[in-house]
Amino acid sequence: MRIGLDIMGGDFAPQATVQGAILASKELADGAKIVLFGDEKVAREIIAAQNADPEAFEFVNTSQVIEMGDHPAKAFAQKTDSSLAVGFQMLSAGKIDGLASAGNTGAMLVGTMFTIKTMPGVIRPCIAAPIPNKSEIPTLLLDVGLNPDAKPEVLYQYAIFGSLYAQHVYGINTPKVALLNLGSERDKGNLVAKATYDLMENSQDFNFIGNVEGNDLFYSTKADVVVCDGFVGNVVLKAGEAFYKLTRKRGISDEHFEKFNFENVGGTPIMGVNSTVIIGHGISNEKAIKNMVLQTQRVIEAKLPEKFKEIIK
Amino acid sequence: MRIGLDIMGGDFAPQATVQGAILASKELADGAKIVLFGDEKVAREIIAAQNADPEAFEFVNTSQVIEMGDHPAKAFAQKTDSSLAVGFQMLSAGKIDGLASAGNTGAMLVGTMFTIKTMPGVIRPCIAAPIPNKSEIPTLLLDVGLNPDAKPEVLYQYAIFGSLYAQHVYGINTPKVALLNLGSERDKGNLVAKATYDLMENSQDFNFIGNVEGNDLFYSTKADVVVCDGFVGNVVLKAGEAFYKLTRKRGISDEHFEKFNFENVGGTPIMGVNSTVIIGHGISNEKAIKNMVLQTQRVIEAKLPEKFKEIIK
Repeated sequence: MRIGLDIMGGDFAPQATVQGAILASKELADGAKIVLFGDEKVAREIIAAQNADPEAFEFVNTSQVIEMGDHPAKAFAQKTDSSLAVGFQMLSAGKIDGLASAGNTGAMLVGTMFTIKTMPGVIRPCIAAPIPNKSEIPTLLLDVGLNPDAKPEVLYQYAIFGSLYAQHVYGINTPKVALLNLGSERDKGNLVAKATYDLMENSQDFNFIGNVEGNDLFYSTKADVVVCDGFVGNVVLKAGEAFYKLTRKRGISDEHFEKFNFENVGGTPIMGVNSTVIIGHGISNEKAIKNMVLQTQRVIEAKLPEKFKEIIK
Repeated sequence: MRIGLDIMGGDFAPQATVQGAILASKELADGAKIVLFGDEKVAREIIAAQNADPEAFEFVNTSQVIEMGDHPAKAFAQKTDSSLAVGFQMLSAGKIDGLASAGNTGAMLVGTMFTIKTMPGVIRPCIAAPIPNKSEIPTLLLDVGLNPDAKPEVLYQYAIFGSLYAQHVYGINTPKVALLNLGSERDKGNLVAKATYDLMENSQDFNFIGNVEGNDLFYSTKADVVVCDGFVGNVVLKAGEAFYKLTRKRGISDEHFEKFNFENVGGTPIMGVNSTVIIGHGISNEKAIKNMVLQTQRVIEAKLPEKFKEIIK
């Protein structure tokens, strides 16, 4: 298995990204290797400075960087020798099995759609965020922003993505899938939520447990997977992040709230596409990068695209 | 001014409601009086036990109670001598100027729609929640659940309601009104949010400042009023409540998070109807009831229906 990492993406790149790769390399499964996309010379310098073994990595030297402020589509088209563009080309060609980056999110979405593309049968891909709860395994919330308008059939597919992810990445046998709604009763919600409930009820494709509400997020383990459109998912995810930052700002140190730390919860997988892409947080430090690389390994192992094909065939 | 209070509504009624009324009565403006709807005998006993003056109140004795678990519309139609039904009849007849209750929310909405009714020109009423921020004056979030599907014209009216409320109840001169969205840029959002942005931009009816995101809630003072549909508003409000409860559960005591306490932030006004109705939290204690009654006084004084008529005439 070859795990691609964009070492130029993120606020603390390439120092934190290469250091994170070194940390991750020590915990990889046999046969797995990290492929570093970016400035090879700088990467080798950091590896040497850390007394790490460069043989643990493969290097793909690139000369350009898509910056955080770059226009995603333009940058992806124009910076053809950027770490991200080359990474996606190799992912699309099957030369690596997954790609992780803490860089420009928009460019990663563009790269995904233009190179590895949406899986056949998928109406709309989405992005999923692991959010903390009182247990050790996070709740998967999806979509968190890719499709602000999602029809019931689209939400139904999100439920399949989420259920497969929770099963094969988190190891939950029969993941409990819920619809995010403004009430727990089945007749509650907007038109889309009501129609989605009808569609999900009695589904054979996943274990639908009904509606959950906003107060079921961030602590309860009522659901393993929570499905919503990208608009509400994005708003509630950011509200949760803000709330966590607030605890930090107020000087509160607490074991549960520490689970909200992006370093620990992991990156955001793109669901419904032909390969594995994980989006990391821009401010990722080496610990966050390490966890993102290991998460990418787990998601590659889970072979989600194949499993999705079995369900919708 | 006559402020109606349903003393039978709420988990700790009538003990907490009558005690809350006693506390509020000491802080009312000259000429304001609280009208207690419910079991007069019990109310007088509680007042006597507290060594309070029964002359400070008016009593409207009623024999029935709409319970928390009752079906709102059925209960409102059948329990004609309930504190809520009689309260709404008197509100509708102009015999009281406002009505507050911590009882069955659904029955209060039914009562509002069937007695005092939606104001002429209002497409859809909504409910607004004061949410905490870093300042002393809360941010008003609306709608928080009445209309899960809201068109741009409806959201535009919410902005007017919210702006008038912030101006005349909170005393903010030119309230900053924002649209809740998944990005700050004007082209972000679902179809409704984009169309609403276009409608609100350059509005002469309120001071539109653009989009705010989920992480602008609960701390930032970027906006005084945040407009959204009832689906996302409900989800994010409940997520915030859950987060606050979590700080309590984790034994965290903090001045800022104490602002999340429903006792302090106040009840939920129904906006766009012909009179003043304030919905309290079911678990209101006497302090929460006191604050709800005083809030009702301020909202009555603000004469929002008249001011709304001036704008849409």
